[in-house]
Order: sequence, then C-alpha cells, then structure tokens
Amino acid sequence: MADFSLRHLLTLDGLPRVTLEHLLQRAAIWRHTALHGPFDATPLRGRTVVNLFFEPSTRTRSSFELAASRLGATVLNFDMASSSTRKGETLADTLYTLEAMGVTLFVVRHAADGAVAALAEVCAPTSSLINAGDGRSAHPTQGLLDMLTIRQHKGDDFSRLKIAIVGDVRHSRVARSDLHALRTLGCGEIRLAAPPALLPDAAISAGCRICATADEALDGADVVMTLRLQRERMEEGLVASLEAYFRDWGITPERLRLARPDAIVMHPGPMNRGVEIADAVADGPQSVIRAQVSNGVAVRMAVLEALAGNGQ
Amino acid sequence: MADFSLRHLLTLDGLPRVTLEHLLQRAAIWRHTALHGPFDATPLRGRTVVNLFFEPSTRTRSSFELAASRLGATVLNFDMASSSTRKGETLADTLYTLEAMGVTLFVVRHAADGAVAALAEVCAPTSSLINAGDGRSAHPTQGLLDMLTIRQHKGDDFSRLKIAIVGDVRHSRVARSDLHALRTLGCGEIRLAAPPALLPDAAISAGCRICATADEALDGADVVMTLRLQRERMEEGLVASLEAYFRDWGITPERLRLARPDAIVMHPGPMNRGVEIADAVADGPQSVIRAQVSNGVAVRMAVLEALAGNGQ
Amino acid sequence: MADFSLRHLLTLDGLPRVTLEHLLQRAAIWRHTALHGPFDATPLRGRTVVNLFFEPSTRTRSSFELAASRLGATVLNFDMASSSTRKGETLADTLYTLEAMGVTLFVVRHAADGAVAALAEVCAPTSSLINAGDGRSAHPTQGLLDMLTIRQHKGDDFSRLKIAIVGDVRHSRVARSDLHALRTLGCGEIRLAAPPALLPDAAISAGCRICATADEALDGADVVMTLRLQRERMEEGLVASLEAYFRDWGITPERLRLARPDAIVMHPGPMNRGVEIADAVADGPQSVIRAQVSNGVAVRMAVLEALAGNGQ
Repeated sequence: MADFSLRHLLTLDGLPRVTLEHLLQRAAIWRHTALHGPFDATPLRGRTVVNLFFEPSTRTRSSFELAASRLGATVLNFDMASSSTRKGETLADTLYTLEAMGVTLFVVRHAADGAVAALAEVCAPTSSLINAGDGRSAHPTQGLLDMLTIRQHKGDDFSRLKIAIVGDVRHSRVARSDLHALRTLGCGEIRLAAPPALLPDAAISAGCRICATADEALDGADVVMTLRLQRERMEEGLVASLEAYFRDWGITPERLRLARPDAIVMHPGPMNRGVEIADAVADGPQSVIRAQVSNGVAVRMAVLEALAGNGQ
Repeated sequence: MADFSLRHLLTLDGLPRVTLEHLLQRAAIWRHTALHGPFDATPLRGRTVVNLFFEPSTRTRSSFELAASRLGATVLNFDMASSSTRKGETLADTLYTLEAMGVTLFVVRHAADGAVAALAEVCAPTSSLINAGDGRSAHPTQGLLDMLTIRQHKGDDFSRLKIAIVGDVRHSRVARSDLHALRTLGCGEIRLAAPPALLPDAAISAGCRICATADEALDGADVVMTLRLQRERMEEGLVASLEAYFRDWGITPERLRLARPDAIVMHPGPMNRGVEIADAVADGPQSVIRAQVSNGVAVRMAVLEALAGNGQ
Repeated sequence: MADFSLRHLLTLDGLPRVTLEHLLQRAAIWRHTALHGPFDATPLRGRTVVNLFFEPSTRTRSSFELAASRLGATVLNFDMASSSTRKGETLADTLYTLEAMGVTLFVVRHAADGAVAALAEVCAPTSSLINAGDGRSAHPTQGLLDMLTIRQHKGDDFSRLKIAIVGDVRHSRVARSDLHALRTLGCGEIRLAAPPALLPDAAISAGCRICATADEALDGADVVMTLRLQRERMEEGLVASLEAYFRDWGITPERLRLARPDAIVMHPGPMNRGVEIADAVADGPQSVIRAQVSNGVAVRMAVLEALAGNGQ
C-alpha cells in the first residue's frame, strides 16, 4: 500500500481526503480485532505510548489505552492534574523529559486551545503526537470515529447525506472535528441547530445551514448528531434551564420522527440523559452511540499504526 | 472436570456448596503460582479486566490486578472517583461504554448496596461481573479467601468448628459474605460478639449464637475473626471511644487465651492496631492475617478463571 | 562477573566503590536498550515491581516504571496519597500486605527521613527495597544517574574534576546522594554555593569548599549542578524573592562563562526556569539535563537487575 504514515494527528482540518479515507479504511479492518482479538498484532511491540492528560478523561484515555495495548505497546498513563506541572515545570519540559526516557508516541489532551500543536512544534524529530482534545479546537480521533460510524450505516457517499448537528456547537471540539471531516468527505448538507448563544462564529459554520429550531434541523435528516451540554453553560447563563433546553433542543422520540425513518442518532458521550437526549432515543433502535465507542478503539488503532512508522 | 463456569460472582448467598468448594479447590491449586509463579498461565490471555472502583481500595484492587495479570490478562484500573461519573453519566452508561470497547470482565466496587447486582441486570450477555464489595451487602471474594484460609488451617470439615466473629458485624460486608459461606459449608457454631449498636438485624444473624462479651465468643473457639472498626462509628456515636472499644472488644493476648490453643486469628485488613486487635496478636503465631492476603490473590485467580468461559 | 547482587538500595552513603562502579558500568550497558530497545530483556520476567509512592512524583515513578517494564516486569503503581494509609494502616502493614501478595521488589518514596530504611528493617527476607527519595536524606538512583552523566562527559577519573553544586543544598536529598557518590569516586574538588540559609550543616558539607557566591563556585568548574528551589523556601522566608535568587544564584549564560568552556550543566528536574536556571542554559549546548533523564532509566534498570537476585 502507499505510504500513509503521519507525523502527528493534531486536527482533521486540512488533512487530505486520501489520508482521511485511508485511516477510515484501516480502522474498518481493525474493527473486529479491536474488540474481539486475536490480540497478537504487534505494530507497536516494544513501543511505549504515553497518555498525557492535562484534563481528565477516563473514557478517551481508556480507548487509547486499549488501542495501544492491543497493538502490542506498553502504555503509561500520566494524569497531569496530579503531577509535576503543579511544580511549575513547563509543558515542553514535561514532554522533553518523556522523550529523554525513550518515549516517542504521545496522546495529549489539554484544556487550552492549541496546546497540543504548540508541543508538536517543539518536540523531537522522532516524536509523534495525537491530539486527544484541546480546548474547543479539535478532537480529531472523535471526528474520525464519527465518520467511520456514518460510513458503516450510510455508506461511503456522503454527498447524498443530510447531517444535523444539534446542541452546543460553539464550545464543542467534537463538532469542529466533525465539520472538518464532513467537508473533506463532501457531505451533502450540514445543518447546525442550537440556541443563538451556543452557535459558533460564522468562520466555523461556513457552508452550513443554520437552523432556528431542532425540528428544522432534523427534518428529513439522515444523521442526527447531538452534543453534550456542559453544565457550566447554565452557570454562565447561556442556557436558561436544563428543562427548557431539553424541551427545545433535546432529541426526543417525537422530534426524531421528523428525520428519515432510517436516520441514525449519534452522541460523543458522556450523555446527559434528559438534557440533550431522551432515554428512549439513547437506547432506541436508531441509536449508534455504542457503535461509536467501539469504533473509537479501532480508529485509534489505525492512527497509532499510521504514526508508528516515525521515531524508529 | 465438570462445568463450574459462573456468569457473575455477586454474592455467596445462595451459591451452591459444590460451586463454592470447586472455587476453593481451584484457589488451592493456584495458591503457589499466585505468589511465586511460574507466571505463564494464560486462561485470560487477550482478555481485558477492568477494575471499576467507585469506592477506593488499593488493597482489593491490587489483589485483583495481580490475579488478573498472573492469568495473562491486560488490566485497566478505573478510579471512578475521578472520572466521568462526575460528569453526570449513569453507572450503566459507564458499563455500556466499556462493553462497547470490548471489555467483558468487570471487577466492581461501589458504596451503595445492590449497585453491582443492578449493573449485572443490565449488562451485555457477554459480560461477567465480580462484586468487589458493595455497601454493607457482600464482598464474596473476601468470604472465599476467608474460607480457604480456615480450610488450610482447620481442614475441610467445618461442622467441627466454633467460629467467633467479633466486632462491627452490623456494617460489615465481609461478615455478611463470611456468614453466607460458613452456613453453606455447614459450620458447627457461629458466634457473633459486638456492642449492641454494632450487632446485625436478626435476619442476618439467624442461626448464630449472639454473645454478650468478646470473652464469651472466644471461649473455646477454633477461629477468631475480628473486623475493622470504621472510625465513622465513633462520629456516629455508636462507639464511646477507641480505648473503651479495645478494652471490651479488642483481641488481646489475654483474651485470645480463652480460645483453643490452636485457634487462628483473622482480620480482613486494613487493621486498626490497638483498636480491634493488639499488636501482639496481629503479629503473633496464631495470626493468619498475611495468609489471608496471599489467599486473596489465589481466590481471585480462581474466580476470574471460572468467569473466563463467558464472553468469548 | 563477580556477585554484585544487592539486598536493598537505600543510600549511596557507604556503598563500596566497587559496587557503585559496577552499577554504573551495567547502566552504561543498558543505556541504549533503555531507550531504543530491543525490549526483549527478561531479568525481571514474572516479577512484580511495586512503585509505592507516599509522596507524588510522576517523573521518578515513570522512570522506574519504564525501567522495570523494559526488564520484563509487571509494574503496579500505588499512589499512597489516595489509599489505605488514609485508613490508619501502618506503613509496615502496607508493605506486609504487598509481600503477602507475592511482591518482592519495592520502589518507595516517602516524605519522612528514614522511612524507607525503617521499612527495610521490617521487610521479609525475600524483599528488596529501592529508596526513590526519602525526606532530605537520600535519592540514591538520582545520585547514580548524575555520576553516570558525569562519566559520559568527563571520563572515569573524578580526581581531576571540580564540581560546583549551586542552590538549596540544605533541603536537597539529591545533593546528599551526589555528595556521597562524589566522595566515593574521589572527586577532586566539591564546591557548594547557596545563600547561607540554604547551606547544609557542617557534617553534610565536610570536605567541600563552601563558596560565598555562585561566581566563585563556577570559576573554572568542570561540572555545574544546580538544584531545584522549592517555592516553599520563599514562604518560609529563606529566600527573599525569586528575582533576587535568580540574580544571585541562577545559572545564566554570563555566569556559566566563568566555568571551563567544556563544563556541563546538570539539573535533577523539574526545573524552575528563570529561578535556578536561565532558559538559554537549560536549552544550551552545555546542558546535559536531558541526558540525565535518559540515564535515569538505564541506572534504574541496573539497580533493579542487581536486586533481582533476591526474593527468588
């Protein structure tokens, strides 16, 4: 096969379509192995993957940990909330220290926009970084797993699809990475629906159809992506109440009936049931939320594999 | 051998004697390997065991981690005190997420009675759960390791034994699981001794001899099990002072002389020395407390092995 | 080769020169493997190494974790800040519990002077302990990695070297272990420079040249070791301000020009840039700070290897 080795995976913005599709194709191949084995794959045998999480996330960290260990790697988890950065060490020095210990593969999450890209600027030539979420900017492996999930249910031709993204797009790195990937894959129509305070700037929503109501966004949609509502949006006064939010923007069975009968419903997790999604939808036949989680392990295996060519 | 595969291990209450004895027999076989190797056993090779601890416990978690890794499994530790459940995700969604990542073996501890059984109700058909302690209800692997320890020192015939359980039986899941197992194995006499506020309800103590003093319980006993006194019992006013507790209910060398000369002393750990047990007893020749810990690894290997047949 | 097996590594104080040099020689051999593999070394295959950290340290813990796993061991990390010791269990009981689970290799860090040695007094005959830092007393693997780093850059003959240690020697276990090793290896001249409140007692500095200024210490030095300034020194009033400290004791490019042109600069990490060291020095051509980190993994492999003969 052609050389699709990547140096880093920082964002899906600008990632060539051929590279993105190659990653999805490899992920599809890993999909069964990721969950059921055999676990004798060894592309990362003898390599150490460090999960460098400056923001806690059991879910994403575990997905990377499983992906890496199923490729034969040793995994070190660094919960940096309880570590040397408290001692005033710079982010870069933390990275340099791990590089000096022989680590070449880094999975990094940080609350600040651009923090992972900044580390990639200063890392050693042998190092590869995966952005596991930075600020509101990007969460590229989530974008990839969402695309894999859509392809599994709706096929490869995204030009025929109407995709509704409902919820707090403004503060969502998941939505940003989804938008990058959906544009690259030539999605037919992308609809965004949220209360005005949660809609993104025009630069982010360029080319998308802004819908005034969730109903408008769901009407005839093939894919309904709902986003987690952080409780801090209420504290910030951006949302009046969780009840009002659920009434207006929650994905309920009634609302879902506006979408195509074969529409799928996605959520990046963890879910606030009864806020952005109703139980009956989350657990219903159109939900592909657990498939997203499964695909997450496979996608991360594909990304780690693509990066593994470096640093050796 | 006959099929002793288990779906879950949630409680010893109602576990058939033949199954319980099979687990003890397998644990006895694993006993040496558990501590000294060779560590080339592979019944869990390629499997992932998740320690899902909603209540912290370094001791129990480590015992399961060693047991699982010595059977060839990959182990993921989830300290859920610092995880997504803080973000409002339900217990069940946490389980579903891990199942969707391909995990089938779960070791779960939770502060709420019945929490593990409730998860077992909703888990996937391929999943197996081990209760590593829930509320005051059950701690079945502790019960098993206590039985293994008694058998090693006192033989298989429990009908000849007088067993004294001294301390906070009321709030102890360890005592509950011990009582379940001792009854199943046909223990000759079970004596409970505690201050009235720490005695269990009649339904729990059915068939046991309630002793008004520790001395009465120890008199001629073959086995003395003492229980940890949580410091919160004092704050709740159930215990006047640690000094008074030690004087009346602590296992001291003087008090131990009331028991049979070959009586063994057990404690589930961690110990409050000078509260429920005197140093000279904890570290004395009749103490089998460290043997209990060693047996814990072996028992957990046997349980994991019995569950490993599922989910494949 | 001769038998250099060690029972414990608690301090470099009194370690015979032949043993110290043997460890450095083995570390030099492991140096490449430690970082780049092949990772098929198996001296610790089937062994469990427990990182028992009563004081948090991501950096040191990770170095030990990588060293142990690259020798084939299973590693358990115990962050004891969040564990049973909170429940009133004694240090010794924590050790006994792990011993009873079959663990024989312990890496222990503790905030109290002598805590690791005290555990070594009571441990099982099969157990080996490595002091990963106790109070202000000792951090022997740091001392060893510093010696390895000096040898790599300055050769084996320490009698020709002038070594300047600048900073908070008084509170530094790193400095103590460095002093032990430098004396054993026959270092030509050891200079200590610090504000008076941060100089050690005479017993510690015996045989060293006390310098009133950093400039005096660096003048013609072959090796410049700077130490981390804990921010609590300011709160304690031992340091007037970070700015004044940097001006008087910080290693700047100007100050470094007083040393030999081929002098190397060392720091145990994590660095307070702009406090004890200037960016231009930390990242400059004379800095061997990252080499120290790399050597740390190799030294810990050598130490674990030397201890591995016990307990089997």
